[in-house]
Amino acid sequence: MATGKINVSVENIFPLIKKFLYSDHEIFLRELVSNATDATLKLKHLTSIGEAKVEFQNPFIEIKIDKEGKKIHIIDQGVGMTQEEVQKYINEIAFSGAEEFLDKYKDAAKDSGIIGHFGLGFYSAFMVAEKVEIISKSYTDAPAAHWTCDGSPNFTLVEGEKETRGTEIILHVAEDSTEFLEESKIGGLLSKYNKFMPIPIKFGTKTETLPKPEGAKEEDPAPTQEVDNIINNPNPAWTKQPTELKEEDYKGFYRELYPMQFEEPLFHIHLNVDYPFNLTGILYFPKLTNDISSQKDRIQLYQNQVFVTDNVEGIVPEFLTMLRGVIDSPDIPLNVSRSYLQADGAVKKISTYITRKVADKLTSLFKNNREDFEAKWNDIKIVIEYGMLSEDKFFEKADKFALYPTVDGAYYTFEELQEKVKANQTDKDDKLVLLYTSNKEEQHSYIEAAKAKGYEVLLLDSPIISHLMQKLETSKEKISFARVDADHLDNLIKKEDTQISKLSDEEKEALKTDIEKTINNKGYTIQMEAMDSSASPFIITEPEFLRRMKEMQQTGGGGGMFGMGNMPEMYNLVVNTNHELVSEILNTKTAKKKERLINQSLDLARLSKGLLKGEELTNFIKRSYEMVK
Amino acid sequence: MATGKINVSVENIFPLIKKFLYSDHEIFLRELVSNATDATLKLKHLTSIGEAKVEFQNPFIEIKIDKEGKKIHIIDQGVGMTQEEVQKYINEIAFSGAEEFLDKYKDAAKDSGIIGHFGLGFYSAFMVAEKVEIISKSYTDAPAAHWTCDGSPNFTLVEGEKETRGTEIILHVAEDSTEFLEESKIGGLLSKYNKFMPIPIKFGTKTETLPKPEGAKEEDPAPTQEVDNIINNPNPAWTKQPTELKEEDYKGFYRELYPMQFEEPLFHIHLNVDYPFNLTGILYFPKLTNDISSQKDRIQLYQNQVFVTDNVEGIVPEFLTMLRGVIDSPDIPLNVSRSYLQADGAVKKISTYITRKVADKLTSLFKNNREDFEAKWNDIKIVIEYGMLSEDKFFEKADKFALYPTVDGAYYTFEELQEKVKANQTDKDDKLVLLYTSNKEEQHSYIEAAKAKGYEVLLLDSPIISHLMQKLETSKEKISFARVDADHLDNLIKKEDTQISKLSDEEKEALKTDIEKTINNKGYTIQMEAMDSSASPFIITEPEFLRRMKEMQQTGGGGGMFGMGNMPEMYNLVVNTNHELVSEILNTKTAKKKERLINQSLDLARLSKGLLKGEELTNFIKRSYEMVK
Repeated sequence: MATGKINVSVENIFPLIKKFLYSDHEIFLRELVSNATDATLKLKHLTSIGEAKVEFQNPFIEIKIDKEGKKIHIIDQGVGMTQEEVQKYINEIAFSGAEEFLDKYKDAAKDSGIIGHFGLGFYSAFMVAEKVEIISKSYTDAPAAHWTCDGSPNFTLVEGEKETRGTEIILHVAEDSTEFLEESKIGGLLSKYNKFMPIPIKFGTKTETLPKPEGAKEEDPAPTQEVDNIINNPNPAWTKQPTELKEEDYKGFYRELYPMQFEEPLFHIHLNVDYPFNLTGILYFPKLTNDISSQKDRIQLYQNQVFVTDNVEGIVPEFLTMLRGVIDSPDIPLNVSRSYLQADGAVKKISTYITRKVADKLTSLFKNNREDFEAKWNDIKIVIEYGMLSEDKFFEKADKFALYPTVDGAYYTFEELQEKVKANQTDKDDKLVLLYTSNKEEQHSYIEAAKAKGYEVLLLDSPIISHLMQKLETSKEKISFARVDADHLDNLIKKEDTQISKLSDEEKEALKTDIEKTINNKGYTIQMEAMDSSASPFIITEPEFLRRMKEMQQTGGGGGMFGMGNMPEMYNLVVNTNHELVSEILNTKTAKKKERLINQSLDLARLSKGLLKGEELTNFIKRSYEMVK
Repeated sequence: MATGKINVSVENIFPLIKKFLYSDHEIFLRELVSNATDATLKLKHLTSIGEAKVEFQNPFIEIKIDKEGKKIHIIDQGVGMTQEEVQKYINEIAFSGAEEFLDKYKDAAKDSGIIGHFGLGFYSAFMVAEKVEIISKSYTDAPAAHWTCDGSPNFTLVEGEKETRGTEIILHVAEDSTEFLEESKIGGLLSKYNKFMPIPIKFGTKTETLPKPEGAKEEDPAPTQEVDNIINNPNPAWTKQPTELKEEDYKGFYRELYPMQFEEPLFHIHLNVDYPFNLTGILYFPKLTNDISSQKDRIQLYQNQVFVTDNVEGIVPEFLTMLRGVIDSPDIPLNVSRSYLQADGAVKKISTYITRKVADKLTSLFKNNREDFEAKWNDIKIVIEYGMLSEDKFFEKADKFALYPTVDGAYYTFEELQEKVKANQTDKDDKLVLLYTSNKEEQHSYIEAAKAKGYEVLLLDSPIISHLMQKLETSKEKISFARVDADHLDNLIKKEDTQISKLSDEEKEALKTDIEKTINNKGYTIQMEAMDSSASPFIITEPEFLRRMKEMQQTGGGGGMFGMGNMPEMYNLVVNTNHELVSEILNTKTAKKKERLINQSLDLARLSKGLLKGEELTNFIKRSYEMVK
């Protein structure tokens, strides 16, 4: 029997690290700046506990490009390394310096914000460099170290000449990576990954205009000076306490995050938790339109102020990916798949926490400033409705603040709505019927008819509203939704009292036959109804059930029945037997006139429902011009 | 000076390999089945060149789940390993066995289809297993090897008891991965990753119905038998030559790929190239609707018949991601970022090749069966138009076969269209004006008017058509597109001859004042035009330029001017001074009647343009019911 230790062959693992560990070459800069930040924060910590006897002062990190020499320099003023430390931290791959440091100063480490998450980070330099140098001088005053490696596993390590504390990394950029010698490229990467890192990062200089000296003439140019160009904000809003921030600060930070975004956010949610996981962040509710997909993936994920990704799928519940802002958490595993993320316990807790915070914020906005909440409802409803559909916990909370606007601009919660309409809109089977329209313009005549009976008409126009209605109908007792054009009103809300028909059953039958003969083959089911004489003579209706099933299928998700999305529309023609014009049709003796009356009435009913189109509309208009004359 | 070799510390790299190398835990099965396939193909090769003196026969791979014992077995009948080989291939991580094999049998390797792409594949087993055993017997007849490792870097290696050739991997599934002991889970993974791998894979058994024996009674049940359940098709269509395949085979393979897809594809493109890169595959044109985004990412990427991903962004040009099918290429780098892919030379060549093949296929379809191509146009136009916009090389080819349908169902190429309409639709400045409608129904009266003048009206209704028109107008000489409702026809195509106005300039002025007074504040610019007396009295038009800019902005992409998407619609009211009704308006003495005539005419013009809505429509209908009586 043989036992042994698995041997990692360095000649083979080294190219693998270069090739596979980081799929994106550009992240070398994030890694090296992270290391530089790490080294600076370590020094800060050591000086604060008196272990390092030097002044911390105001160190910064500098990035320099030497285009001619094909070099990139990353220089920090942090702890630095002795030759022994280089041997230990650099030459032994995967022996993460940050981890050992964390072990040693565990309790303090959290506050000092050591990054140390990118164990193999340094070696990502070889993705873009054919040779890498480290010149480092430790804060302990040991002689400087100078390490050189050409990407093979062989290195040299000699005493270096550096006089000042800190580390300088020199990348000799490889031929296939010269794009990284462009100022615009490096500037772009710094702004993408390092915009909010905690140590100031200097990249070149910029020209600043100074105030004119007293007594300067108007035509004199204002004096200028070259100043360091600091590319980051080391203290972004989310790292502060909510109490330190004013409304303006939140809005200002939103502009920092989305400089190209001109609209202000509606409101923000400050996240701040340190048990059972660490998470800070600020989420914003932007104004949302009905086009859901284009508005997703704007939340940025950071770890200790280092940008990681703007894809937070799996971390934030689906319905909240339409929000914007920043989440910063060291507890979210990196480089793992989304399906793995979704199964991860810590991530599940984070997702639940964020959902709860959003629900709580909405509850408090609703309670503290109802008027403002109503004004914002149309811009936020899509998130809330989507959340109610997808997360039961969220539904429970949102059911208390979700609003149902009427066509007249009132906003009710579901409970308020029930209270308001129950007297008038409860049918004879004790079911509460909630009337709604999906379009105030298109269904105008139907809305008017419902309002004439004193009914409230809701304006429900979100793309997913049919799914939400379905959920409400099944989760609440004895309520149902009906669109105003789903049937004529006496059928939508059936009461005990029935209208008396002016026409006898024989007359109705005769009339129905006349109409059927005239509108032959247009596919309408004819329904003779005794309605108010002031209601329209002809009305076209579209049964609720089938229409809603079709809509649900079209907007995806479960609920719609299979294949219904492709079924043809189904319409009924309701004939008001109590209307004067209908009597006239019945009593007209000449067939031609009867036909004309029926056709013109049908065209007007179709026009009212938006069904008169194309050639038929053109013909109707031509006939009508004739009638004008 | 010190020199040395970078040392990879195994205690630290091992967890990293487990954790980071593969972001998705489920791929362990793909890796192990790939290794098993690899071992079997190696044996096939060695027997074919006479190096292995055994019978290759018909080996298969078997996957077994032992739910109670919490084990998964992966068993192959391939080359197997001796103890020395286990030591060499397994214990030295990243010493890829396949690579060495490829070096040795370079020329033959390509044909034998060795996978060998997943160097560290075996170790992915530790993502789900707390202990892994390898029991292997080499084809060389050496004693079997039995290797055991508990995920620490320590292993044991002893002589094994296996009698038959091949390798058995036993995974002792870890507590947090017991989901992989479910038959449905493993079945799902096999079907996702291994559906087309080249060696048969057995997973359990299934019941097959046999024919009834002769003389069996009707009520007798048909006999059944348990047979091996082979989950893969080792010879999928794309691995064959186009000459071996019939139309039915391509359709059948489409159903294999998309079992839930009921619609047949329109046509296929067989890809097959081996220089300067290796690529095989079959692409299908499905029926496409205007909703672009939901139809993307259905192409599956394979490497040597192993499923890799269904995200081919960066490999296939954006406009072709709406197609479906399979691409199989060992030359596409895996595990790299999309931005890296796009910069990779080989990938660029692949993308160019695919684009060219698609263009060539479309050209031949157009040339060989024009009628069929026309019938399919509406289902494929979105891809072609998108391609014309985004790839100049594709534009050049597609310009010869892209079709422009008319409202009457004729289909012209651009050249044919020019030829057809140049006599009648060239204006006095020698510019060819192409009239189009975006909606036959909504713009019906305008289309009729254009047809009455003998003009051809195109039906152009793709969501990106305004971008394409813009491109055609700038890339071709002296042509322009105008929607039929952009102005009245005499202005859209200006000819030398002008209509004589029945009204004098004074009368026109008086009439204009009357109309302006009546329709006060409705925002129409009034245009008095001497038109044919049979044209409509009032026409509402919408200028082309502004409308198109708005549309381009709404559908995204460059071209639209900044901020135009939010500008209000702009309409003109064209008054036909030669129409009888217009004369009547002018000559009506009573102010009330004049007002009624103007309002009713305006309402009819707005109705024709789809602008009469909501309350105004309801009122119009009420008035019209009155007039019916």
